[in-house]
Amino acid sequence: MKFEYYDDSVLKAQISGDRFTVTYRIRAEEKEAHEMAKTICVEQSVEFPAEHIECETIQSDIIGKIESFTDAGDGAFRAVISYAAENVGEDFPQFLNVVFGNSSILPDITVERVDISERLKEIFPGPRLGLPGLRELLDAHERPFCFTALKPLGLPAKALAEEAYRCALGGIDLIKDDHGLMNQSFAEYRERVRLVSAAVRKANDETGGHTVYVPNAAGAFSSMLDRISVAEEYGAGGIMFAPGLTGFDMLYYASRHTSLVVVGHPAFIGCYIDRGKGGIDCECLIGQLPRLAGADIMVFPNFGGRFSFSEKQCHGIQEMALEDMGSIKPMVVSPAGGMKVERIDEMRKFYGNDVSLLIGGSLFTSPGGLTENCGKFKKKLEG
Amino acid sequence: MKFEYYDDSVLKAQISGDRFTVTYRIRAEEKEAHEMAKTICVEQSVEFPAEHIECETIQSDIIGKIESFTDAGDGAFRAVISYAAENVGEDFPQFLNVVFGNSSILPDITVERVDISERLKEIFPGPRLGLPGLRELLDAHERPFCFTALKPLGLPAKALAEEAYRCALGGIDLIKDDHGLMNQSFAEYRERVRLVSAAVRKANDETGGHTVYVPNAAGAFSSMLDRISVAEEYGAGGIMFAPGLTGFDMLYYASRHTSLVVVGHPAFIGCYIDRGKGGIDCECLIGQLPRLAGADIMVFPNFGGRFSFSEKQCHGIQEMALEDMGSIKPMVVSPAGGMKVERIDEMRKFYGNDVSLLIGGSLFTSPGGLTENCGKFKKKLEG
Repeated sequence: MKFEYYDDSVLKAQISGDRFTVTYRIRAEEKEAHEMAKTICVEQSVEFPAEHIECETIQSDIIGKIESFTDAGDGAFRAVISYAAENVGEDFPQFLNVVFGNSSILPDITVERVDISERLKEIFPGPRLGLPGLRELLDAHERPFCFTALKPLGLPAKALAEEAYRCALGGIDLIKDDHGLMNQSFAEYRERVRLVSAAVRKANDETGGHTVYVPNAAGAFSSMLDRISVAEEYGAGGIMFAPGLTGFDMLYYASRHTSLVVVGHPAFIGCYIDRGKGGIDCECLIGQLPRLAGADIMVFPNFGGRFSFSEKQCHGIQEMALEDMGSIKPMVVSPAGGMKVERIDEMRKFYGNDVSLLIGGSLFTSPGGLTENCGKFKKKLEG
Repeated sequence: MKFEYYDDSVLKAQISGDRFTVTYRIRAEEKEAHEMAKTICVEQSVEFPAEHIECETIQSDIIGKIESFTDAGDGAFRAVISYAAENVGEDFPQFLNVVFGNSSILPDITVERVDISERLKEIFPGPRLGLPGLRELLDAHERPFCFTALKPLGLPAKALAEEAYRCALGGIDLIKDDHGLMNQSFAEYRERVRLVSAAVRKANDETGGHTVYVPNAAGAFSSMLDRISVAEEYGAGGIMFAPGLTGFDMLYYASRHTSLVVVGHPAFIGCYIDRGKGGIDCECLIGQLPRLAGADIMVFPNFGGRFSFSEKQCHGIQEMALEDMGSIKPMVVSPAGGMKVERIDEMRKFYGNDVSLLIGGSLFTSPGGLTENCGKFKKKLEG
């Protein structure tokens, strides 16, 4: 069909030819997988029976294009599909929408990776600091960063500030709120950020250290700007969002509009991970998407802890976060989740130096006290 | 361990005793499943080795509690776990965080439903309009609502406005932007909302009808308030967000701070759906969570269309959306996704009257033109 008021030359003039690609793995017989790839091209763009669209430029540019279709082994096929940068506009959520909006609901389709184009790199320039910026900021040039979390939910802000003070005295690089600390009456956000920031500053003044506090700001839309302001006002140094709870765009916003270290947390995005029935490969979900959104650090569950990631997945996540993407700085990944003090050497050997190791409970419960344990933690990473 | 500055009586005084529950299905042998249920209690609250927390009220109230543990059949067990309302505070994202934050990353755990408590019903009062409010607003008291979408991406705003005009002339109840229309240069948000709202108003003036236009506002955090204002300024009548892209809290925000009809779209939440390896049952994800967040209407993929939901799942989604929740109004679900004009009678029979049927492409491509096809669509629902 023809559409009233559609002028092909007007649309054509708006198309730069700049395209980005998404790599999908499709579990199906070859013929069906190819049909599904064609479905994705339409589903992720026009959502309209393509054969009915009598519009040249929509057909040639707006609808997704299969760039390659190959056997991926294990009964799956790999389709690389390209989309016009203009389909995205300037919203990161719309970028995700093009990558996997409706197709997320279709079974047996997995996003393996995205390769963004030059035009999109200008719009989504990635981490403000990234690995090189964090090395400067934390004065830690060749070693992994050491990271901990304030716990448990239920403590008053003063108790969390005391914990932070002790950790900072021990020389820890980064301290975040536990992701369950938001704005509960026990330790309200503003009060918590005020006290913890002051405690960390006091310790830094005493030691000459550079510890950064990362409050968890993920919460109601209406409170987010205020929570960011509070973190800036009290000099927290960082800010954390769980993109599964707030949308990935909070990482983008914080990286473009603040000078805080931007940390992403994986809460509520676990479901996205492909477990054999479709989703997003964890390497892409954790190593790539937060980096493109602007996170400096992304927390994820380490292998051998409470969660179920394999060594291969953890390596893959780190590789995606560090791989060369031209102007987009590498992001630091931070394995966490039941990490123990006893595993520091193993973790360092596994991840090398371009990583942040996050140990929570074990620093608290190991003999010696927080300051001493944080000191040992750092020392092991410096050695 | 004991925590400095922790005063049990202070915490105790903040706990009302009001608790809400989450029902989890855990796929494992009985003993392991019970261990996992205990893990969830800790993971979704204190994230700290429970045996090390020497704090009475944290132990008795803050840590989740297994209320029941039963055989769910098919090699799975069902754990109902309660949490203190105070763990949530007043942020809807923190509610979701307590429901399934970190546990979303654990395999083989599925959220079946949530049962919110009286205190939380005050904080999260659900849809502003819901089914009864929409019946008044749309002057449609006993029939399903008819809903369509403006398509395809690539058309100029003027063309989309023309489509909307024709649909409204035909008496359609609701018209939404295709969820891929955001703020692309082809049909920028402000211009689109201005022209489409005016076109719908013109048609309503001519017919005496009540068609509501629902622009898709899901996008960058920084633009969201402006996009809501634009929808209000031009009298669109509704607003749509995809909670997978923006977070569920946008539904909450719009329902509490605007008088627009709030529509949720499932883009990018498909991964959450349990496909046998853990996640959220689609009945809860689509029928319950958006309702608790405040959506008046939630769009979802109908059975037998382009997507893969079963009849049972679709019935379950509708049931969850309509079930009695006391003060929380029922939400209207809107099956969509490759729905065809020929299926209207079948859909009406299947869903009854308390539903909104969303037909997109098929209204455009069926013989007769948009106005006539929308008129027939409505007539079938009135019959």
